[in-house]
Amino acid sequence: MSDVKTAIKPTRAENYAEWYQEVIKAAKLAKHSPVRGCMVIEPWGYAIWENMQRVLDGMFKATGHQNAYFPLFIPLSYLQKEAEHVEGFATECAIVTHHRLEKNKEGQLVPAGPLEEPLIVRPTSEMLIGEYFAEEIKSYRDLPILLNQWANVVRWEMRTRLFLRTTEFLWQEGHTAHATEAEAREETHRMLHVYEEFARKFMAIPFIMGEKTPGERFPGAVATYCIEGMMQDRKALQGGTSHFLGQKFAKAAGIKFNDVDGKESLAWTTSWGMTTRLIGAMIMIHGDDDGLVMPPRIASAHIVLIPIIHKEETKQEVLGYCHGLAGELRHIMYEGKALNVIVDERDMRGGDKTWNWVKRGIPMRIEIGPRDIASDSLGIARRDRPHRDLNKQTRQELLTSVIDQLEEMQTGLYEKALAFRNSHIHKIDSKEAFYAFFTPKNKENPEIHGGFAYSHWCGDPEVEAIVKKDLNVTIRCIPLDSPLEEGKCIITGKKSKQRVIFAKSY
Amino acid sequence: MSDVKTAIKPTRAENYAEWYQEVIKAAKLAKHSPVRGCMVIEPWGYAIWENMQRVLDGMFKATGHQNAYFPLFIPLSYLQKEAEHVEGFATECAIVTHHRLEKNKEGQLVPAGPLEEPLIVRPTSEMLIGEYFAEEIKSYRDLPILLNQWANVVRWEMRTRLFLRTTEFLWQEGHTAHATEAEAREETHRMLHVYEEFARKFMAIPFIMGEKTPGERFPGAVATYCIEGMMQDRKALQGGTSHFLGQKFAKAAGIKFNDVDGKESLAWTTSWGMTTRLIGAMIMIHGDDDGLVMPPRIASAHIVLIPIIHKEETKQEVLGYCHGLAGELRHIMYEGKALNVIVDERDMRGGDKTWNWVKRGIPMRIEIGPRDIASDSLGIARRDRPHRDLNKQTRQELLTSVIDQLEEMQTGLYEKALAFRNSHIHKIDSKEAFYAFFTPKNKENPEIHGGFAYSHWCGDPEVEAIVKKDLNVTIRCIPLDSPLEEGKCIITGKKSKQRVIFAKSY
Repeated sequence: MSDVKTAIKPTRAENYAEWYQEVIKAAKLAKHSPVRGCMVIEPWGYAIWENMQRVLDGMFKATGHQNAYFPLFIPLSYLQKEAEHVEGFATECAIVTHHRLEKNKEGQLVPAGPLEEPLIVRPTSEMLIGEYFAEEIKSYRDLPILLNQWANVVRWEMRTRLFLRTTEFLWQEGHTAHATEAEAREETHRMLHVYEEFARKFMAIPFIMGEKTPGERFPGAVATYCIEGMMQDRKALQGGTSHFLGQKFAKAAGIKFNDVDGKESLAWTTSWGMTTRLIGAMIMIHGDDDGLVMPPRIASAHIVLIPIIHKEETKQEVLGYCHGLAGELRHIMYEGKALNVIVDERDMRGGDKTWNWVKRGIPMRIEIGPRDIASDSLGIARRDRPHRDLNKQTRQELLTSVIDQLEEMQTGLYEKALAFRNSHIHKIDSKEAFYAFFTPKNKENPEIHGGFAYSHWCGDPEVEAIVKKDLNVTIRCIPLDSPLEEGKCIITGKKSKQRVIFAKSY
Repeated sequence: MSDVKTAIKPTRAENYAEWYQEVIKAAKLAKHSPVRGCMVIEPWGYAIWENMQRVLDGMFKATGHQNAYFPLFIPLSYLQKEAEHVEGFATECAIVTHHRLEKNKEGQLVPAGPLEEPLIVRPTSEMLIGEYFAEEIKSYRDLPILLNQWANVVRWEMRTRLFLRTTEFLWQEGHTAHATEAEAREETHRMLHVYEEFARKFMAIPFIMGEKTPGERFPGAVATYCIEGMMQDRKALQGGTSHFLGQKFAKAAGIKFNDVDGKESLAWTTSWGMTTRLIGAMIMIHGDDDGLVMPPRIASAHIVLIPIIHKEETKQEVLGYCHGLAGELRHIMYEGKALNVIVDERDMRGGDKTWNWVKRGIPMRIEIGPRDIASDSLGIARRDRPHRDLNKQTRQELLTSVIDQLEEMQTGLYEKALAFRNSHIHKIDSKEAFYAFFTPKNKENPEIHGGFAYSHWCGDPEVEAIVKKDLNVTIRCIPLDSPLEEGKCIITGKKSKQRVIFAKSY
């Protein structure tokens, strides 16, 4: 096996960061816009987001949440109600200061109509939704309130990367209020588990659930939980967060209620969010040197049929066959939706067309010519296998087994990603080994380091500052399933009761 | 029949504008937010929008469109590329001028990080999507491009009304590019018909399709088409627009392509949009003096089951029955979705609960007590009938007929609205009758005037200025089905070849 010809240049091994950009470009998922830091999500990329929304929205509703919509703008005075919160977002706010355009003396249009109070384009909506909760909640009978919003948010970024870090991004933000601490903590964990389950079952991404250290918490939160995954360059990426806000935001927004005994209490709140960033994780985890690989359950489309027409006289037969087969396939349901099947009739060279679909990551590709039809033998290419490795099936066999094949690919992608991750998580117990682990050895691949270090930490924030400075490494999380065990901190040697995940990250 | 007790005060006849606000409040559809001009769409209102999105999105995809997402911010220089376009939006732009907050000497947070170029929060996305088209389109083979975006937009409003006129609102905006004028004109009409069909079949709203006069066109458009409906106060409301943009935006954005002969040509573009405003139309058209009435096909939920429990010992039986029935009903599909059934177990007075659901406009309400269960006789209340008018059915009859009953209500609402509208459209041929038609006669109901005047217009914009000034009346549209006929202009007496719709409007 020495198939060195790849569709994407550079390869992952050559330059992972550039490979990522090239995969997105070749698949036409998204592109930079003329607006600083903002991306255009193109149809092939947006279709993934639509599938993610559909599935996640169903999971939110199944856990009792309702959707609502809150304003894009947050008056500065509201954002300031919680001190840590505003501080956390102050350096990355888009600020609206005027409400019309007017011609100046030179005849140029300039901002006019200054606002009395600046409006912040929402970086997150805790304060406005908190205000709504304060108005709506009078008694314990009004609790819990379980809301979710699908929206765009803005956090000003100087250095942007498509999907991973953009000034504007799309997300959902859940916001809930509860009568007791226990219920709010339960909700925080429930939604973390919903995220992990969604990523595992639909995006084929294995995530580690854990708690963030105090220094990495959401601004104003009492506890922040996250899911952390490993990309193919062994760096970590945070895939979603769930925050237990205690009574801090309730205090700031005045969310009070009369409890069963008629006593006035502050509510307990949570918030949780998942974003278009997860599409970036999907690209980085499943993609290969030929481009995008999409898990079938959230793929933009499932199957492409490519009519092979060498002679004009066979055109009608081949096209008729393809459209007939597409019609039959579209009657098959997959994860609550009809199979999405494309018949690619574009007028372009066959080889270009094949590579086009390989790069776009469609799970299944079937090229169909007159001989395939005559012999009732279709050559089925699956994106998780070498692109010339065709599985021969009759039309009937395909129709019967298509869902099984897609599910096999789905499972296979997950297992491959899990095996990769597990092979690059190491228990490291000496400082020397720890430093060596995070120091790239290969000059050819300066980015490739060890992966995740599962090591002891004494709990001192100073340790986080040291590893950040020396190695650009952070504590990604304290895994929920990390057992209590006595040990010594990897940096200070002080007593530690638990291992945590250290890694470089996006 | 003299049931004068109504759930909403004032009634429609007493004060239509206030009635509208009270219906929204009583149904908990939306409320004003602390952010000037922006509304909170509450779960019961947002669920209507979700249903609208689901159906419209399906119709867009069935007509070949794909979804994508473009940036929230538009650099001023881009908005300026089309002169009429920027002029049309200049007086209502939210403008971002800074990108962070900083403490001043007094320790107050103030806008900092001034931007080199102001960013306009999108009022519409023609210019950015035009830029994308210009990059993507090289040859006639790349055409047509048929895109749609679901998004929030901002148009600064001084006087706002929930759903009808808010600074921020939700909408979809379609944007397409074509190789020929004929195709672009066909697309403009196709989407206008999609809007009319959607409103008719799902919102139970009869709209008149027509073309706007030049003075009422979208800023920069060559032709604007609209759907216009009549509210119960006989005023008009525009429910959606579809614009033929000619080559004006293509020229401004540089959307060029090589045609079949290799010659460079400008593309022809269209845009079309429908918004959360349509929820306002639904409220105003179907609501009654007891509150909201929702057409079943887009209702937030379809059926509420209210357990009637007078004694603790029957509680388990009644609740068990209700949940069992709800489970069976939820297995029934309606318009591609499972029936949405609520079991209202809240601890509140029975009468309050009944009125609560009447005001919220749920299509079907069933109150269930031990005697109803014992006799297998359920009393089914439908929101389009007097609230005490119960239809008695067995459980089995209900399960068999529920869809028919909902569809009967759906059709009935449409027919009622159509009959109302038709009874208030009048052909008026004298200036005196025209002025009298638009002059309220009843001092008790100063708002109630004649309705829509279907009258001749000579085509002079001056006529529009006169009726606007004298009567606050505008030409709503030139109906597509308005036949050519010789006549005299209602104001100038000059020759006219067609009647148009004159009305007061929202």
